[in-house]
Amino acid sequence: MKIPLRHPLIVSVVALSSVALAPRPLNPPMLGFTEVTAEQQLELESRFDALLNAENLREWMQMITAEPIYVGSPHNKEVADWMVEQFRSWGYEAELAEYRVLFPTPRIRELELLEPTSFTAGLREPTLAEDATSGIEEHRLPTYNAYSADGDVTGELVYVNYGIPEDYEELERRGIDVRGKIAIARYGGSWRGIKPKVAHEHGALGVILYSDPRDDGYYQGDVYPEGPFRMDEGVQRGSVLDMPQYPGDPLTPGVGATADAERLSREEAPTLMKIPVLPISYSDALPFLRALDGPVAPAEWRGALPITYHLGPGPARARLHVEFDWELTPAYNVIARIRGAEFPDEWVVRGNHRDGWAIGAGDPTSGMVALMEEARAIGELMKTGWRPRRTIVYAGWDAEEPALLGSTEWAEHNGPELREKAAVYINTDGSGRGFLGMGGSHTLEPFINQVARDVTDPQTGVSVWERARAARAVRGNEKARKEALSREDLRISPLGSGSDYTPFLQHLGIASLNLGFGGENRGGSYHSMFDSFDHYTRFGDPGFVYGVALAKTAGRITLRFANADVLPFQFGSFAENVSRYLEEVTELADEMREETERENRLIRERMYELAADPTKTYHPPESKEPVPHLNFAPVKNALAELESASEAYDEALAARMADGGMPASRAAELNRVLMSTERLMTRDEGLPRRPWFRHQIYAPGFYTGYGVKTLPGIREAIEERTWDEAAKQMEHAAAALQRVTRAIEQATDLLHG
Amino acid sequence: MKIPLRHPLIVSVVALSSVALAPRPLNPPMLGFTEVTAEQQLELESRFDALLNAENLREWMQMITAEPIYVGSPHNKEVADWMVEQFRSWGYEAELAEYRVLFPTPRIRELELLEPTSFTAGLREPTLAEDATSGIEEHRLPTYNAYSADGDVTGELVYVNYGIPEDYEELERRGIDVRGKIAIARYGGSWRGIKPKVAHEHGALGVILYSDPRDDGYYQGDVYPEGPFRMDEGVQRGSVLDMPQYPGDPLTPGVGATADAERLSREEAPTLMKIPVLPISYSDALPFLRALDGPVAPAEWRGALPITYHLGPGPARARLHVEFDWELTPAYNVIARIRGAEFPDEWVVRGNHRDGWAIGAGDPTSGMVALMEEARAIGELMKTGWRPRRTIVYAGWDAEEPALLGSTEWAEHNGPELREKAAVYINTDGSGRGFLGMGGSHTLEPFINQVARDVTDPQTGVSVWERARAARAVRGNEKARKEALSREDLRISPLGSGSDYTPFLQHLGIASLNLGFGGENRGGSYHSMFDSFDHYTRFGDPGFVYGVALAKTAGRITLRFANADVLPFQFGSFAENVSRYLEEVTELADEMREETERENRLIRERMYELAADPTKTYHPPESKEPVPHLNFAPVKNALAELESASEAYDEALAARMADGGMPASRAAELNRVLMSTERLMTRDEGLPRRPWFRHQIYAPGFYTGYGVKTLPGIREAIEERTWDEAAKQMEHAAAALQRVTRAIEQATDLLHG
Repeated sequence: MKIPLRHPLIVSVVALSSVALAPRPLNPPMLGFTEVTAEQQLELESRFDALLNAENLREWMQMITAEPIYVGSPHNKEVADWMVEQFRSWGYEAELAEYRVLFPTPRIRELELLEPTSFTAGLREPTLAEDATSGIEEHRLPTYNAYSADGDVTGELVYVNYGIPEDYEELERRGIDVRGKIAIARYGGSWRGIKPKVAHEHGALGVILYSDPRDDGYYQGDVYPEGPFRMDEGVQRGSVLDMPQYPGDPLTPGVGATADAERLSREEAPTLMKIPVLPISYSDALPFLRALDGPVAPAEWRGALPITYHLGPGPARARLHVEFDWELTPAYNVIARIRGAEFPDEWVVRGNHRDGWAIGAGDPTSGMVALMEEARAIGELMKTGWRPRRTIVYAGWDAEEPALLGSTEWAEHNGPELREKAAVYINTDGSGRGFLGMGGSHTLEPFINQVARDVTDPQTGVSVWERARAARAVRGNEKARKEALSREDLRISPLGSGSDYTPFLQHLGIASLNLGFGGENRGGSYHSMFDSFDHYTRFGDPGFVYGVALAKTAGRITLRFANADVLPFQFGSFAENVSRYLEEVTELADEMREETERENRLIRERMYELAADPTKTYHPPESKEPVPHLNFAPVKNALAELESASEAYDEALAARMADGGMPASRAAELNRVLMSTERLMTRDEGLPRRPWFRHQIYAPGFYTGYGVKTLPGIREAIEERTWDEAAKQMEHAAAALQRVTRAIEQATDLLHG
Repeated sequence: MKIPLRHPLIVSVVALSSVALAPRPLNPPMLGFTEVTAEQQLELESRFDALLNAENLREWMQMITAEPIYVGSPHNKEVADWMVEQFRSWGYEAELAEYRVLFPTPRIRELELLEPTSFTAGLREPTLAEDATSGIEEHRLPTYNAYSADGDVTGELVYVNYGIPEDYEELERRGIDVRGKIAIARYGGSWRGIKPKVAHEHGALGVILYSDPRDDGYYQGDVYPEGPFRMDEGVQRGSVLDMPQYPGDPLTPGVGATADAERLSREEAPTLMKIPVLPISYSDALPFLRALDGPVAPAEWRGALPITYHLGPGPARARLHVEFDWELTPAYNVIARIRGAEFPDEWVVRGNHRDGWAIGAGDPTSGMVALMEEARAIGELMKTGWRPRRTIVYAGWDAEEPALLGSTEWAEHNGPELREKAAVYINTDGSGRGFLGMGGSHTLEPFINQVARDVTDPQTGVSVWERARAARAVRGNEKARKEALSREDLRISPLGSGSDYTPFLQHLGIASLNLGFGGENRGGSYHSMFDSFDHYTRFGDPGFVYGVALAKTAGRITLRFANADVLPFQFGSFAENVSRYLEEVTELADEMREETERENRLIRERMYELAADPTKTYHPPESKEPVPHLNFAPVKNALAELESASEAYDEALAARMADGGMPASRAAELNRVLMSTERLMTRDEGLPRRPWFRHQIYAPGFYTGYGVKTLPGIREAIEERTWDEAAKQMEHAAAALQRVTRAIEQATDLLHG
């Protein structure tokens, strides 16, 4: 589903020298290779690069985007079959891995304004002469939110801004609630599924989601077809399943949704939304918003429609009626393999999803065709007699958009084998033009930085690493700007959710990476009919040159993982990032303590009332329990051990590889240990209230959806002010770090031994 | 002209105890009074309070706002004559002080869009049934900018955001300039006169100013007449004279504009704008902005019109044609006095302006009628036999709106006498509902805080001080929030410009205060036809209860100054504020140094280019001379001396007054010294390039207009990167602090002696 990139890369980093004046120091030795094997690898990569052809990306995208490709659509299956054939023609063992997943499609969609005036929402994206596929009628998937409840509700409207928990606190201050009413929320500020979940928690009958022109419409730039941004009738489709509980088929949590799997009933499925939800365009939203009265919305809540934004409730009354066909639909993952010549049971898994909400040119086809070209080039290399040392698995996931269905069911279905064999999962999704975004396991931070230094940016001729660094140095926040000029590596982003790495990283504990280019292809076609070939080739990556750059980047990662003598994990970077997260949660508790004291004093001294306008309704907040001092010592102690073990390993590895490497059998033993380290960051019991999410360092936020929470058990316990749970989670995180430390120590012993 | 209050009071402060739980400690002894005289003063003030009647304010406002009251209008003169009569009837010596000032009024106002479509701006505020004076035709002053040049210019349009210097840097980055073009700028971000001045410096032919709905229209709240904000055809009139050079009559800088004064020719007058300027409404602006193409405006530049904001230049081409009658017009200050019974040559001057751009209900009549009621109550007190010990001068300034004309000419004309006799100048201007805003000389910070603790807020029953504190504690920025809960006094704002205190404070060196209520009467009637009685009594201060609170506050200040045994100056607060300003300018230099280094490195290493989208025009900034380390020692040493002298004085005064005060003759000698202290902060040569502004601690910014620059000589030299000048200005500031220190030491000797 690909999170639309708003601002390019807000993280940071850099080499010690200057680009233009001083020569950059030579790259450090290639991670995981000796001098001899690195040279062979570089030669292989340069042959790989030469095989990549942008025209293939264009041609394949045009074919794939000719018709709607959502899960269950006829064209989706055609493309799946064709892809299997392609992979086979390139020398892969390829097949479809089929699952049967719950995928509702709309039967009835009605939205009316009843008072103070009448209006019926059009709920229809128009046909544009400039966009060849915008008029397709056959198998067109209407605009809707998948996993909305069936329902027919009528009530007063309340404008809830982004509809996240803090927005309801603001409403409460003003004496407004949504109980028995319909909430209208704008897209943005969190993953969309959070909005109806929180509205339901607050008693709303239903939710209307709309795209405010401030967020991806005319406020941001010219609208389609003149420019790339969302036009007045454009609608963002999307899932509202409660994925922060668990993604994948709502009826088969934790197990593969095979034809004969045991299934929950729909009533039992906890992730299905409990109230009706419908997404609309801003031209449909305007009459509803204009009809609201009541207090003026806070400044940060106001969008770019030419009205005064009011909160309501009423006098606007609306009726929302949606019903769905709740069908089990076949989802087809394309799975293609090359068996490793030396270590067939060590897998490098590389995936991108295939399905899109409508036409899906940018999301996901731009990433999918890069993956295919990468696979084709590797196929060509094989024709010259080369074989990867490890097994490479290429995947084209189906049904990512509704709920990461294809990848999750496959990962659940093959869980034990993957936990045994997977060395890494490398994900891409929709990709565009501009700057390399890098997310993933921090044990891979030095590795991915090294790869990024070796790929050339197609627009400027410097490395994609240098360009990413420049963006951070110029446009990052203060911290990021500083770091970009002083840190050796660019810091990579921890992963939350929003694409297919989630089951691999957070459920199975497989070290993962997520990559894509962006920042110069901003627009508003996301999940609309206008995410089309015409749109992408005008405003996305017109020459597919970044598609090729992505193939070079992800291909290098795949090839290096496939061939490395020692898997290219490093632990110093991991320890340093974890220490930052620990600082963050420590500061979070300290700031909450200070803020709680301050706020309680303001309440006690009536200052909230005195600062409020007496002519307006105002309810001051209630005082909160003071924030106790928490015992961070277990995690700090575990971290200290991790830091010294990590340093010892990184040094020992460098020395060993400089010294010509190690005997194959000991290397194999070492690699088994290295593959285990990410697994050791998980805990079988998972996180509180969501056992599916097992990783102790990274998780999507329970109330952010996509947004990552690092040290999630600790952080969310503090945020939710559950102090006993925070203490317990400290123990779990400490234990995870200790397990990793033991493995690192074992790995170091193997290097020395 | 009254700066419209956007956010209530972004400064800060507070007593050590809590309001609700712990009893607030008794106020410290009344500053400047002994226990005995303080008791008499409190009794006088309570009689004063009882005499104030909100109905008078309402009645007078209705009368004053019946017709336009700009300088030179018939009703302006009628009101002046009536006011003189009123003051006389209350027992004052009252008269008109007349000056002849250059006041242009429009003869031709034409604005057309020529390409790519045609449109002629309406330039006309509509008549509203809900607003009784909106349809007045007789002597209606059209919408215009006073002191715009005559001109008829045609050119391509460029959108320049607020039109301040940093906006032109952004344009330069994008390869856009305004040379030979017409700039369209939105109101806000600085005083309006800065915009055409900077546009002219960059070669623009003319400037269109418009009110974006984001700044005071529908984005902020419901528009008039439904709500208080600016409706689509509402226009902000206003002056564009280059007042940061000098305010007052452009033809008679530094001297009173009497009938026979020597005058510059218009060609010689440096403050007259050199290019034509015209203000328009957002309904008139929309077609011009919509017709622009070129790069999309940066996010912070975008307003709330339902368009994509582009920068141009063109294809929009416009023609702007304005011509004016350049006439000398009589300005009538109302000057009313009560001769002091004991110290007739020590004056307490209390003023508010009388003139408004159109109807002028909020600005300035709301403040003017409070001043009148205050004066009437003092008249009533006199009828009981009471007389002030010092002379009280009440002033109703004319022609403040065009250029602080009335007050400036009177202050220049009576300069020597005022420098000899004025103990304080107390200013008000338009005032509304909500929170007390306090600005002024920091030698008066403890005094004005004490007064504010003694006035009751009409809506909540606590003191206006407590309410102001609550607003800062709840809504201030982080620094202000903290300070509000920890500092004994609320910090008052240093004064820049924007109302009649400027000639007194910054030209003559008379300690000044500026007061008003606001924060709960936000709206968009500023300088439009809709700043009317109907608007003010619906959305301003409907019951005139804050008008009465203002009369209580300013009246107390006046009465305490008039009767004090020792003038209520304190110096610890002054020294503490100056030390903050010194820290600020030190940090400014340090940050500029660091930022310059960083930026020069980014330039050297080509990072700006690498971070930019190669498909768009982008010019990286040019590298700058490194920021040297400056010698702040002279000011720091002078400050250290000031701090200890101040502490000694404040302690000695408290001890002396607790001990029953001092002999009258020595008190008189002491008061002469105290009156001199603000004078000693000035320097006859004034600030660089603007000798009229003599104060070394406070000045309006050369490129902000209203916004204050503290330690202005030093601060602006650093901002402009003129290091030699910064060094010189350090010496001047140090010398000023030394002069003040010597006077304080002398004052302390008198207390002890």
